[in-house]
Amino acid sequence: MKISMIGAGGWGIAMITHLAHLHKDVTLYCRNPETAEVLRKTRESKDYLPGVKIPEHVRITADLKEATEKMDCLVLCTPSKAVEQMVEAMAPWVKKDAVVVCASKGLAAGTGRCLSTVISEKLQGITDNIVALSGPNHAEEIGKGLPAATVVASEKENAARFVQDIYMSPKLRVYRSNDILGVEYGGALKNIIAIASGVQDGLGLGDNCKAALITRGLAEIQRFGVAFGAKADTFYGLSGVGDLIVTCTSSHSRNYNAGLKLAAGMTKEQITGGTRMVVEGFRTTEIVYPMAKKYGISMPITEEIYRLMHGQHTAVEALECLMTRAKKSEDGIDMQ
Amino acid sequence: MKISMIGAGGWGIAMITHLAHLHKDVTLYCRNPETAEVLRKTRESKDYLPGVKIPEHVRITADLKEATEKMDCLVLCTPSKAVEQMVEAMAPWVKKDAVVVCASKGLAAGTGRCLSTVISEKLQGITDNIVALSGPNHAEEIGKGLPAATVVASEKENAARFVQDIYMSPKLRVYRSNDILGVEYGGALKNIIAIASGVQDGLGLGDNCKAALITRGLAEIQRFGVAFGAKADTFYGLSGVGDLIVTCTSSHSRNYNAGLKLAAGMTKEQITGGTRMVVEGFRTTEIVYPMAKKYGISMPITEEIYRLMHGQHTAVEALECLMTRAKKSEDGIDMQ
Repeated sequence: MKISMIGAGGWGIAMITHLAHLHKDVTLYCRNPETAEVLRKTRESKDYLPGVKIPEHVRITADLKEATEKMDCLVLCTPSKAVEQMVEAMAPWVKKDAVVVCASKGLAAGTGRCLSTVISEKLQGITDNIVALSGPNHAEEIGKGLPAATVVASEKENAARFVQDIYMSPKLRVYRSNDILGVEYGGALKNIIAIASGVQDGLGLGDNCKAALITRGLAEIQRFGVAFGAKADTFYGLSGVGDLIVTCTSSHSRNYNAGLKLAAGMTKEQITGGTRMVVEGFRTTEIVYPMAKKYGISMPITEEIYRLMHGQHTAVEALECLMTRAKKSEDGIDMQ
Repeated sequence: MKISMIGAGGWGIAMITHLAHLHKDVTLYCRNPETAEVLRKTRESKDYLPGVKIPEHVRITADLKEATEKMDCLVLCTPSKAVEQMVEAMAPWVKKDAVVVCASKGLAAGTGRCLSTVISEKLQGITDNIVALSGPNHAEEIGKGLPAATVVASEKENAARFVQDIYMSPKLRVYRSNDILGVEYGGALKNIIAIASGVQDGLGLGDNCKAALITRGLAEIQRFGVAFGAKADTFYGLSGVGDLIVTCTSSHSRNYNAGLKLAAGMTKEQITGGTRMVVEGFRTTEIVYPMAKKYGISMPITEEIYRLMHGQHTAVEALECLMTRAKKSEDGIDMQ
């Protein structure tokens, strides 16, 4: 069994460390040769996942061909905006019928399609064993071996089962799903609601208000996903509400922390300029809001985050808009 | 409009303070005459809700007749175990067709029925305007006027609309539901999952694990509610997942804090002996677990909390049992 992790950010390092405890032939691809060299020597990324040691038998390489060819299982965990190009570059070396896992959380620019859809197209004729992996999985905790659960989803049940077997351990419970779109939309869109949670905590509005925001956020990302082919129930599982809860309530979350900074009056540019890490929720908002508008999908939280990002509303104005909508019955029918 | 709050714990004081900002004729019933006298003089409960001032025009009384007769709206917020007796005592004075709101969160002992069902029976022939009020509403924050949202549910739409109008303010968004059982089961059973969340935080298992626990907990309390007549979708709203999130993640929650203490090795008796406040989740577990067993409803988290409460498992054993169940697909079908 040959497994390769494509991407050496915090999430990639956490996953390869987990997998290295279960498998012998494991590879980590790091795009930057100098960084790869540092990782090889120190077995630790001070920038992305300090305190987590990458086991000695993990092969670390900056050579994409070496990281791709002959691999039985390839896991993609680059920032979402890099996935399409990366798969294109890998395609010539991907083994026939290899299982390809998308563990990046985001949507394709322009079209707003799920990353698995894009990957499928790029690998047509080579493999259709495409799997999405998503769940409440902060890299910091997975890297330390704390217990967690996640979901692997695929249209091909055998591919999902294969990835479930690879990842399953006493520390990590892995569930299967056949709704790959639902799993991916949940993982991508929850980052928008996490920004909103950070904004509301930054304004000091309390736990009641945050729980209401998360609940309404769940309904909103579900509406979007279902409109584009996801199953409604998937949003009530680990990859939906589970991931939403951890991203909105944990201090580990970059998107939540970005929201805190928006509430403090920082602009999107000031926030992203100050970190090497990607705030996926900003990118996802830019993709999702125009689509919601075009297709008439009600997404009030996403709309307010979009306005806040573009300086059209202050944080206080955004939250006021969300709190003072008309009286409603909870199934969403306007009553007056 | 004459409104009366039956119960002067933290939740009752928070609600009457909220209502006093919107209405002139508001009464607070406090069972203990000495406590009522202190509340009348100091306008504050140091024990239950320190820092929140009860407005001067709130009439505070220990006379149940005075607190009940001629009232257009009666809100019950005693500990759940006292609701049945309280309504029995009030019945002779309840005005014909008065609206009676149940804001206590728990189930009837023995039968496990919803409190609204019990209230309906006790008030048969007097009124059938029975409403449940439930949502992510920590008293500490409602008392301070922080923003929140809640749900009012009734089989009688006009009764729900009446309570919605009474409570609605720019600070408190009120949604209506016609699924009174779903709203009540969510409010009652979430306290069991909150204890479990406290246990897992007490063991230091991290945010990923907690999010998984809450997600599986949501599925479990939904299974129970649906088996007894609730609608599945109600558990995805404010009174279900919303209340679950706030109770499992906020340090205000008594049930969560009880779980922390269980993890530290304290017994149920030591925990309840040390506080004047009621840990509703303990009582609800005692009612729910035997019913789940009798009717064959899978509730693994409730089962482990029950065992932990009865000294049959340690906290570590309970969590281990939950983490090492067989591989599953997420819709709950056992795969091997």
